[in-house]
Amino acid sequence: MWLTDALCRNDKLSAVCCQHEQAAAMAADGYGRVNGIPGAALVTIGPGATNAITGVAGAYVDSSPMLVISGQANSRILQYQKDTGIRQKGTQSLVLGNMVRDITKYFAEVMDPADIRYHMERAWYEATSGRKGPVWIDVPIDIQNKQIPDDMRGYEGSCQEFSPVDWDRIKEIVTSSNKPLIMAGYGVLSAGARENLLSFATRLSIPIVTSRGGIGAIPSSNSLFVGRPGSYGDRASHFAVQECDLLLILGSRLAQSTTGYYPDRFAPNAVKIMVDIDELELDKSDVPVDIRIRSDLKPFIAELNKRSSDWLSNDHTDWVNHCKYNKEKYPVVLDSYSKEEGINSYYFTKILSELAPDDSSVVVDTGSVCNIVSQTWELKGKQNYLISGGLSCMGFWASSIGVASCEKTVIALSGDGSTQMNIQELATLKYYDLPIKLFVYNNRGYMLIRHNQHNYMNDRFLGVGPNSGVPSVDFSAVGQSYGLPVVRINDKSEIEEMIRKVFSIAGPVLCEVMVQEFGIIAPRISSRVMPDGSLRAAEFDDLWPFLDEGKLDG
Amino acid sequence: MWLTDALCRNDKLSAVCCQHEQAAAMAADGYGRVNGIPGAALVTIGPGATNAITGVAGAYVDSSPMLVISGQANSRILQYQKDTGIRQKGTQSLVLGNMVRDITKYFAEVMDPADIRYHMERAWYEATSGRKGPVWIDVPIDIQNKQIPDDMRGYEGSCQEFSPVDWDRIKEIVTSSNKPLIMAGYGVLSAGARENLLSFATRLSIPIVTSRGGIGAIPSSNSLFVGRPGSYGDRASHFAVQECDLLLILGSRLAQSTTGYYPDRFAPNAVKIMVDIDELELDKSDVPVDIRIRSDLKPFIAELNKRSSDWLSNDHTDWVNHCKYNKEKYPVVLDSYSKEEGINSYYFTKILSELAPDDSSVVVDTGSVCNIVSQTWELKGKQNYLISGGLSCMGFWASSIGVASCEKTVIALSGDGSTQMNIQELATLKYYDLPIKLFVYNNRGYMLIRHNQHNYMNDRFLGVGPNSGVPSVDFSAVGQSYGLPVVRINDKSEIEEMIRKVFSIAGPVLCEVMVQEFGIIAPRISSRVMPDGSLRAAEFDDLWPFLDEGKLDG
Repeated sequence: MWLTDALCRNDKLSAVCCQHEQAAAMAADGYGRVNGIPGAALVTIGPGATNAITGVAGAYVDSSPMLVISGQANSRILQYQKDTGIRQKGTQSLVLGNMVRDITKYFAEVMDPADIRYHMERAWYEATSGRKGPVWIDVPIDIQNKQIPDDMRGYEGSCQEFSPVDWDRIKEIVTSSNKPLIMAGYGVLSAGARENLLSFATRLSIPIVTSRGGIGAIPSSNSLFVGRPGSYGDRASHFAVQECDLLLILGSRLAQSTTGYYPDRFAPNAVKIMVDIDELELDKSDVPVDIRIRSDLKPFIAELNKRSSDWLSNDHTDWVNHCKYNKEKYPVVLDSYSKEEGINSYYFTKILSELAPDDSSVVVDTGSVCNIVSQTWELKGKQNYLISGGLSCMGFWASSIGVASCEKTVIALSGDGSTQMNIQELATLKYYDLPIKLFVYNNRGYMLIRHNQHNYMNDRFLGVGPNSGVPSVDFSAVGQSYGLPVVRINDKSEIEEMIRKVFSIAGPVLCEVMVQEFGIIAPRISSRVMPDGSLRAAEFDDLWPFLDEGKLDG
Repeated sequence: MWLTDALCRNDKLSAVCCQHEQAAAMAADGYGRVNGIPGAALVTIGPGATNAITGVAGAYVDSSPMLVISGQANSRILQYQKDTGIRQKGTQSLVLGNMVRDITKYFAEVMDPADIRYHMERAWYEATSGRKGPVWIDVPIDIQNKQIPDDMRGYEGSCQEFSPVDWDRIKEIVTSSNKPLIMAGYGVLSAGARENLLSFATRLSIPIVTSRGGIGAIPSSNSLFVGRPGSYGDRASHFAVQECDLLLILGSRLAQSTTGYYPDRFAPNAVKIMVDIDELELDKSDVPVDIRIRSDLKPFIAELNKRSSDWLSNDHTDWVNHCKYNKEKYPVVLDSYSKEEGINSYYFTKILSELAPDDSSVVVDTGSVCNIVSQTWELKGKQNYLISGGLSCMGFWASSIGVASCEKTVIALSGDGSTQMNIQELATLKYYDLPIKLFVYNNRGYMLIRHNQHNYMNDRFLGVGPNSGVPSVDFSAVGQSYGLPVVRINDKSEIEEMIRKVFSIAGPVLCEVMVQEFGIIAPRISSRVMPDGSLRAAEFDDLWPFLDEGKLDG
């Protein structure tokens, strides 16, 4: 109550009122990813706080800086609840500490107004230093309304200790490599090290692949860009990983969805150097990394770029051309996709990414859409590219609300299931006239689960579409009911025209794309049938559809 | 994945697929409250689990039995995350223990398939025994698919220890009282003790007031029913509490929203006997209770009813008539409300409750609607009456989905803000053709906060309506876009006709009621201006509008 009033009275702050705290948290996450400093979500006591948890957890695993401020019961009541363990004393009040400590870098209940400067400075420090992440300040109602003393203790963060770097060795490894490869993860973007990385890679002609989180690190048209390896990857990048003799893993945590099922055979021919700010990630890797360096990517890559200015490295022309050859020979989006019945999501995405403005930001929700778009999107210029990486939470498209507050155009892409998870925010888009173009890939249900139940459950379908318990929603009608301009794409012949129409409309637009219900998702890591009939996960560079089968049938 | 398939293969179980886990948890809560046994919510890993937290927290503070089963990453990955504290290893996986332990009675990760019987039996026991509440079983993906041994250890709950009851003393106190009063809380309903309570009260002519949670304990037409005390209460019940010489507090935790700001002066003339199953609630009370009895209400009230069959108590005719006189003299719904401009929510609710079927269940969402409806609703027959009591979480109307699975007609009442919080579930209502009549009291924003900012912030409005950051939604249009029959009430002249129309339609209906934006919420506990100009919370029986002012002006 008093915090809201403070916000109201403060001319320097402006707020976007989301309809649901889940969306408010995701919007703050989106803001943080694009700006590198925390977006803030102000939520009410109890259910307001718990509603924000999914968004906060997503920001935590994806290293996004975020500040949550929650209202709380009177400090005496809160203390009583903490001391006794009673289910509740004050109206709506919940003790949040245990609930959010594992998904925040710092959590504090402000029990004394004189501590507020300490808590705020520390929260800001924690959110923005080291591996970034969310922080949470819980403010009892009586504290909100207190005068604070002029003289308060503050907080000064300490300098982080990083590994010493043996630059001579790195120089030797890099310059003697014939087939070097850079794997860029979100850490590069989080550290603001993109330009230095591209400068370094360009000077030494080192091809780049990106993890999902690192997609924004390099434009697709850059001749050094190879692809995006992972469970739903592309052949060129998988070949490159398995063939390279040096892999520089920069700010990528090498998640299983990136490295596949045989991490011990990931980049088997390469000397692997991994640089990460989080020691736990360096320790975690199932991939046998040769050199682990704990460092902030920003100074590390700046130093790498600077030092390499006089390095004489081997010639990589053949290697770069080889990667380029594979990329051209094995495109993700096949020509045949344009000829299929119905709208193939890959085909649609390719056209959309071609028509998307250079200066737009792209927010991709989870599910099959995330796989398809992340495989396909042709990143241009300095486009931001945001996904819910680690948590992979549905409804993430609403983080576009936070991105829209500082970007010209935001392209949000979402499946029908995920769109529903934050559908109430269509009202926010309309009210604030946000420049968000929301593309809903409507495949009538949950396509990834549909594939799973088809592949592993003998077509026993439950909860995947209109025939198994999940309604089909008319998003064009819903969008209109919220007052949004709506564009619906029913046929592939109208894709380009309709996309142009979407971008010609100022402000928010909902574009419903009636895509195939059971579209192929490929290439991907799948299983091979062994001679004895059992299934075995295929190798990292043996993506389905298997090349030796020469056909696409499952 | 495997749990969903198991559900699909089990003919004895049927599932309702909600669009959002938040709603699934609330639906399970609703099922539990109406049936007394746990409703179950099956949710997916990570964000699926965190999305359920608000609903689980609500069930916890409101003592509703519920079982949550969540999918989880491979047990090795889960163990690694627990051991190392790394942010994440498996895709989507979060360690849930700390996050949900404070809002569940039992939480278990099933790390060994042979433990599943133990965990399930213990979970069921905890959910349904003592003070009821939610339990949560987290099942790693590899465990889901394991064969379980035939011979597994189980769990047998122990008998609970309760306070010895000095029945002679209770008999003496009850029979010698001249102005006895029963305060019935949710504990009475949770224990299934309603019939015995009414039998006891009728035999001894003891008037009854109910807490919000206990509203379902007595039909409004019962001559012993006085009212529902609380921050938003009614004069008759507040007078009765302050005048009675004996207060039997049965299954009510005496929340501040029930007792007002001076708990030490709550029922000041009464011997107070409090019976509750939760020792912490008995210890908590700020109200000076004379006799605290820890007991299950079911055997206690059964015993009370049985023993009292030969008690000779004082005559309470005058007292009962006095309470009845106050109730008639000070109705909540004033005649003038029907003559106001626009639709007064009290007036509308009164008509709705008169026209509502006797065998319907009533689910009330939070906010001003909860206050208004809980003050006004004329409970009939065995109507269930559900609110989000302790947590008071917006979107609670979706618990009607769980209630609808076992009731003929469910009347869900919600404000516009709360309706938005689970708006995606309109698709569920439509798809499953649920007999839910959703009445949306559309006051264009958040009316309680609007009142607060008017009363305490000098009309500095933020986030309360279309002029301060919160869009107005056309719920009739949204309802139609989801395929629901829609009825809109724009004018008070059409209220009765339109309500009849709603009930004449089978299956789900959305009825949007365009109520006053700044309607009065009264009577309520407010503040009085002291001679020195300061504000002071009024006494419990001095409800606003203050009777000595004789007018309604703010």
